[in-house]
Amino acid sequence: MEIFEQWESEIRGYSRAYPTVFASASNARQTDEAGKSYIDFFAGAGVLNFGHNNPHMKQAIIDFIQADGVAHSLDMSTTVKRSFISAFAETILKPRNMNYKMQFMGPTGTNAVEAALKLARRVTGRENIVAFSQGFHGMTLGSLACTANQYFRNAAGVPLGHVQHAPFESNVGGGLEGLATLRASYENSSSGLEAPAAFIVETIQAEGGVNVASESWLMALQNLAKDLGALLIIDEIQVGCGRTGSYFSFDKMGLDPDIICLAKGIGGFGTPLAMNLVKPEHDAHWQPGEHTGTFRGQGFSFVAGREALRYFEDDALMALTLERGAMISDRMTALAAQYPNVTARGKGMIQALDIQNGASSKAIARECFDKGLLVGPCGIDGQVIKLIPPLTIPDNDLEEGLQILERAVKTVMEARQ
Amino acid sequence: MEIFEQWESEIRGYSRAYPTVFASASNARQTDEAGKSYIDFFAGAGVLNFGHNNPHMKQAIIDFIQADGVAHSLDMSTTVKRSFISAFAETILKPRNMNYKMQFMGPTGTNAVEAALKLARRVTGRENIVAFSQGFHGMTLGSLACTANQYFRNAAGVPLGHVQHAPFESNVGGGLEGLATLRASYENSSSGLEAPAAFIVETIQAEGGVNVASESWLMALQNLAKDLGALLIIDEIQVGCGRTGSYFSFDKMGLDPDIICLAKGIGGFGTPLAMNLVKPEHDAHWQPGEHTGTFRGQGFSFVAGREALRYFEDDALMALTLERGAMISDRMTALAAQYPNVTARGKGMIQALDIQNGASSKAIARECFDKGLLVGPCGIDGQVIKLIPPLTIPDNDLEEGLQILERAVKTVMEARQ
Amino acid sequence: MEIFEQWESEIRGYSRAYPTVFASASNARQTDEAGKSYIDFFAGAGVLNFGHNNPHMKQAIIDFIQADGVAHSLDMSTTVKRSFISAFAETILKPRNMNYKMQFMGPTGTNAVEAALKLARRVTGRENIVAFSQGFHGMTLGSLACTANQYFRNAAGVPLGHVQHAPFESNVGGGLEGLATLRASYENSSSGLEAPAAFIVETIQAEGGVNVASESWLMALQNLAKDLGALLIIDEIQVGCGRTGSYFSFDKMGLDPDIICLAKGIGGFGTPLAMNLVKPEHDAHWQPGEHTGTFRGQGFSFVAGREALRYFEDDALMALTLERGAMISDRMTALAAQYPNVTARGKGMIQALDIQNGASSKAIARECFDKGLLVGPCGIDGQVIKLIPPLTIPDNDLEEGLQILERAVKTVMEARQ
Amino acid sequence: MEIFEQWESEIRGYSRAYPTVFASASNARQTDEAGKSYIDFFAGAGVLNFGHNNPHMKQAIIDFIQADGVAHSLDMSTTVKRSFISAFAETILKPRNMNYKMQFMGPTGTNAVEAALKLARRVTGRENIVAFSQGFHGMTLGSLACTANQYFRNAAGVPLGHVQHAPFESNVGGGLEGLATLRASYENSSSGLEAPAAFIVETIQAEGGVNVASESWLMALQNLAKDLGALLIIDEIQVGCGRTGSYFSFDKMGLDPDIICLAKGIGGFGTPLAMNLVKPEHDAHWQPGEHTGTFRGQGFSFVAGREALRYFEDDALMALTLERGAMISDRMTALAAQYPNVTARGKGMIQALDIQNGASSKAIARECFDKGLLVGPCGIDGQVIKLIPPLTIPDNDLEEGLQILERAVKTVMEARQ
Repeated sequence: MEIFEQWESEIRGYSRAYPTVFASASNARQTDEAGKSYIDFFAGAGVLNFGHNNPHMKQAIIDFIQADGVAHSLDMSTTVKRSFISAFAETILKPRNMNYKMQFMGPTGTNAVEAALKLARRVTGRENIVAFSQGFHGMTLGSLACTANQYFRNAAGVPLGHVQHAPFESNVGGGLEGLATLRASYENSSSGLEAPAAFIVETIQAEGGVNVASESWLMALQNLAKDLGALLIIDEIQVGCGRTGSYFSFDKMGLDPDIICLAKGIGGFGTPLAMNLVKPEHDAHWQPGEHTGTFRGQGFSFVAGREALRYFEDDALMALTLERGAMISDRMTALAAQYPNVTARGKGMIQALDIQNGASSKAIARECFDKGLLVGPCGIDGQVIKLIPPLTIPDNDLEEGLQILERAVKTVMEARQ
Repeated sequence: MEIFEQWESEIRGYSRAYPTVFASASNARQTDEAGKSYIDFFAGAGVLNFGHNNPHMKQAIIDFIQADGVAHSLDMSTTVKRSFISAFAETILKPRNMNYKMQFMGPTGTNAVEAALKLARRVTGRENIVAFSQGFHGMTLGSLACTANQYFRNAAGVPLGHVQHAPFESNVGGGLEGLATLRASYENSSSGLEAPAAFIVETIQAEGGVNVASESWLMALQNLAKDLGALLIIDEIQVGCGRTGSYFSFDKMGLDPDIICLAKGIGGFGTPLAMNLVKPEHDAHWQPGEHTGTFRGQGFSFVAGREALRYFEDDALMALTLERGAMISDRMTALAAQYPNVTARGKGMIQALDIQNGASSKAIARECFDKGLLVGPCGIDGQVIKLIPPLTIPDNDLEEGLQILERAVKTVMEARQ
Repeated sequence: MEIFEQWESEIRGYSRAYPTVFASASNARQTDEAGKSYIDFFAGAGVLNFGHNNPHMKQAIIDFIQADGVAHSLDMSTTVKRSFISAFAETILKPRNMNYKMQFMGPTGTNAVEAALKLARRVTGRENIVAFSQGFHGMTLGSLACTANQYFRNAAGVPLGHVQHAPFESNVGGGLEGLATLRASYENSSSGLEAPAAFIVETIQAEGGVNVASESWLMALQNLAKDLGALLIIDEIQVGCGRTGSYFSFDKMGLDPDIICLAKGIGGFGTPLAMNLVKPEHDAHWQPGEHTGTFRGQGFSFVAGREALRYFEDDALMALTLERGAMISDRMTALAAQYPNVTARGKGMIQALDIQNGASSKAIARECFDKGLLVGPCGIDGQVIKLIPPLTIPDNDLEEGLQILERAVKTVMEARQ
Repeated sequence: MEIFEQWESEIRGYSRAYPTVFASASNARQTDEAGKSYIDFFAGAGVLNFGHNNPHMKQAIIDFIQADGVAHSLDMSTTVKRSFISAFAETILKPRNMNYKMQFMGPTGTNAVEAALKLARRVTGRENIVAFSQGFHGMTLGSLACTANQYFRNAAGVPLGHVQHAPFESNVGGGLEGLATLRASYENSSSGLEAPAAFIVETIQAEGGVNVASESWLMALQNLAKDLGALLIIDEIQVGCGRTGSYFSFDKMGLDPDIICLAKGIGGFGTPLAMNLVKPEHDAHWQPGEHTGTFRGQGFSFVAGREALRYFEDDALMALTLERGAMISDRMTALAAQYPNVTARGKGMIQALDIQNGASSKAIARECFDKGLLVGPCGIDGQVIKLIPPLTIPDNDLEEGLQILERAVKTVMEARQ
């Protein structure tokens, strides 16, 4: 650890929460250099839906390297990019009758959001974006303006403008009444507010505390956006790619977003990739190369990401995800019931235990770490324990992880009484 | 190509300039699926200093995968990250007596710049940044405000604030006089300008047209920054990592930047990585996790990047780079001399032929493509042909590439008369 | 009128609504050059609380001129300024136990608001201001950012930042629930909102449609401001100086604003003056001359404004104002009852008839003009007829004006059925 | 003075520099309540070109009051407004073949500038304004962004955006070279600068230190503006209305500004008035009432301002102004020659002695005050003594004032050696 303390920036965060050095990882387990094995309920903050070192992907990547595949291509055309695009169209878009263009950009979620914001502003000729409380959309200046958390915002060093924050469904002033207030404000020519270029929303606020928006609220939001001539941007970066039990978190809701931002899980293996799905009529507003990025064409991510899409060729993984999600939800609900103010919530295999107390939840996460389980606090002041294991986690790892968590909650909550 | 036309965003750029589908790549050659081989004088916009599919790196990556290495780790500590950090400190920093902290962020150059801007604003408590004409620093809103090119700026859709642009050394109003004007303005309490948080500069503006700043101008800029209590940020993203014949483009200049932004070449293999070198006294201003990013810990990049550092354990590659750079420079100078207004410039193995006419330079690039050479126009209106082959390019590929270029220039220039 | 059409800017507004040339004015009547007399229920948009050419003020001004009084003094001390300050302290502040500093600035309401915003930002070190829907605070860039009306905002030509608009009490999403939403947002560190420097509010939105805030809402707003460490700025520019039946519109409400903006009526005669009342602990943050203005020291306004203060040495005028206000209110309520959707509201001698239809209200105002009564539409799309006659209006003028209005409403509303 | 200390804001400035209470004023003299008489070389910061209590204006105002003239009219048409407009057209515009619309706004210079900026942005659809170092254009947020002085800018409390400052002719980096730098930057699509909506400039920077722009520089600036499709706004607020020996400071220069801002001297008597002269093709972009203001129609100012225009019906006053200006200039040049680093400059009856030392110049101003002369320091750190007596000053007052100044300079400069 000395090397890190001596040479790495003080900004390092997770390495403080998990003070060990990891040497290898396989499916839902990480092993540190001392040989201690950890069950991973964190999965790279939602990246590793298909586990660490997924064997199909490993083989595909090795084959790709050995064949001198094009690892880096900017936005030149390559055979592996074509395979990815083609598979995505066939497996994901066509079965849903979704007609979208795929835009690749610098391979980070924040870059996807920045590109979406640019396009929404271009299409509408408007500047303002509406984002929601607890929303997390990235760290670069454009997306950071949409991110709600003060800790991140304070690092900007300049005013974060051109974004208005409204209460998320679950907040005071939120719900359908909150959207009615927004609608009335935009319809009032003397409200001081002008119709926005876009609304950007996560259907489930993952970093924000696993707050799950209802279908009715999301539909009302979409209607508001359409009535105002504003775009609806769904940031699926953490909860897309199968996490909720279907490819998109909003499948079957009747939603028809203008732009869908994807990253994290889309490259499959943990290698970077980001992609926006953009309605063709909006996409037509782009001029060639207006939003570039050196690392756009990532061969490894196309290869592994193409493998990942095979999991969506049938319903097996998604059915299992729903089943296990229900089981985890039951366990968390039962656990929460034992403590005042503690609640459980989630959807599919993103589940959460809201401890309502940051110190306690951090103590629980630390206790889990000591006992061999990686979980991450999220939400305001880190009050919420988020569970996002790989969808491919073996049953016994899942069970063992849940037991470690249950015991850790008991240990900490009893000590705190 | 149909798949791309049907499904990929209209924003695609390089795939229009190079209308083929690449299937494989090795060192300085890319091969399309029709079997046509291209000599690569573009090298992934400066990423592939050590060639496509560098054999040392290939093997290291395969070994890493087969050993279930940790491919994705956010900013948790891993053994391969430690190896990279340690090698960078030993090979690059210590021999130069440079004392910097290494900060990893979302693996794109723009993300490195955004982090640098945040820190400079935090450290100084000031908002304004000075950037230079033709500067290119990225596409996300904070770095885009530093990027000078109108085409990119127009895509923002909101005013780009908190950045002042000054003429680069080679522009009208630039030079040492330009810096004297800036100094006088900052010393005048009634100039309307306030001392900035930082100056951000590329020692060689790669995208901006291969404009090479002189040592005296860079030293004057550094003195100005220090006198104003502003930070000096050097954006080494395209010209660092050995491109100019030494690891840093500013080696031996007496420069002592506060922050150095690295990306592109640092991961070695074309896999994403970005890193800032930050003076410890500035780095101490970061709070843990204030600038996060999902894809910070890229195992493949640490493994390949560590291999890349071996090229700097002795002088062989850098000596060769200088030698070949001089040869390319001679050839371009001789070529330029044959045409009015055409000039040559560059440093090490980033060399350029300034055609002074965008249509001609694009025609030359197209002619090169047809004849099997990849080169990219850069600079204002793409008037400048930039040559950045892999440093590891075989002699015969280099020679063949130069000859293709020389013929293409002749063909186009004669046709245009 | 030709001279105006030929030489005056196309921006002229009232001269289009009242297409005649006025030659003289006395108390509540204006006379045009054709000799036609108009009863004035508009009173210079709230400036002329004491009538046109108030005889006490006329004499005082003539005496002042004849004695070579100092008509213009920037912020130098003059005898007449001292008289004004002293009388204001004795007549207005001391009886209310109000301890405020008087700040004079460029003699426009917008300038008073700009100064208040600067000070609030200085005192708190924060940038954001909260203003309300329908709020009107001025036309210069700082105050315009607080003004809600889109028509005015559209003229800015730049984004209007650093101000957040919230629904006024009477709007959808307003009321005490609206303030609760604001409070929850500010208490949520992940709301995307930061505590503001100040809330700026009109107790009665005069330009905004004569929307009267309740005491309970204003007190809740004040409590919110205090809890957040934000300043409460009350913009009394149109409804202060006795308009509502007491000197301040918020007298006896238990409000304790940090800054009170005054203009319009304070100079008494229609000559420009603006003044902020500032709590001494805030005022101490000003450095000498930080907010200057050439026309700060207006002798005529000090002289006439001092005369105006005599009206507040006893209760006669305020008692009469309340009595007449009640009478006008009764008449408007009865009038409104005759038409669907038409409502009446107001306080003291600012009363309004809300026609709920801009075309109709403008037709009524035009019909009134033709019949010899000046009234001004206000509110969204000008749907509201605002009645703000001089407080000193003779009884018969008041009665005649009300009858003209009643007939005009009848005429227009019947024609529109 | 106690009343002021107790009740007036700490922001008061001139009353600290001139610590007495003025009771009356006539032409170029002010008298305090102790009976001490002061010669006024400050003239209300350039307002009182025709002296305090100009007898023609006094009589006209008294007649106006006694006839119940319309003192306050917003932008309704009045007979006195028509007289003013008509006289301005006949006396000033027509003889110069100038075709401009007159726009009246809130009666402060800052308001005139705000209106000009709005219109320039509207006409061009651009946001950025270019202003110059030492420029002074007002205190409200839009004009303050154009004002260069840091002391005033620091009071804003928010970033001042959408304005770029360039060095004025007399600054390092200024001159024709400075304009050439600007031109090159705007012609370079990769400069980071976009063509501005307007350039705003004072031909003589009065507050900024009496810096006199040359005709050739102003013409080059105008050419630059025209070539870029930007408007040229001349801020004549302090040096217009005859101050330089002709009505406009730029008369006979061949300049053809798009907007001319006037205030200060235009109302003649020290009562507020502001007016923009706007080219009709630009003025046509205004919608009615888009930039309003309560105190737009000031009867007193129209009446006195109309009297002021009589001074321009023949050449007498202007010829005298030039003659006296030359005399003052000679005296100041001779005075300056006695001291190292002290210089003199000016035009017409705005002349200055540049002491190059703020403490000394303030000491001189104080010594003058003690000896019965009012002069104001201006420029950076107040280093420049500005002389702007009424144009109507009696010869003996002018002579006596100059002698007081000469002695004060001697006293202070000798004491400082």
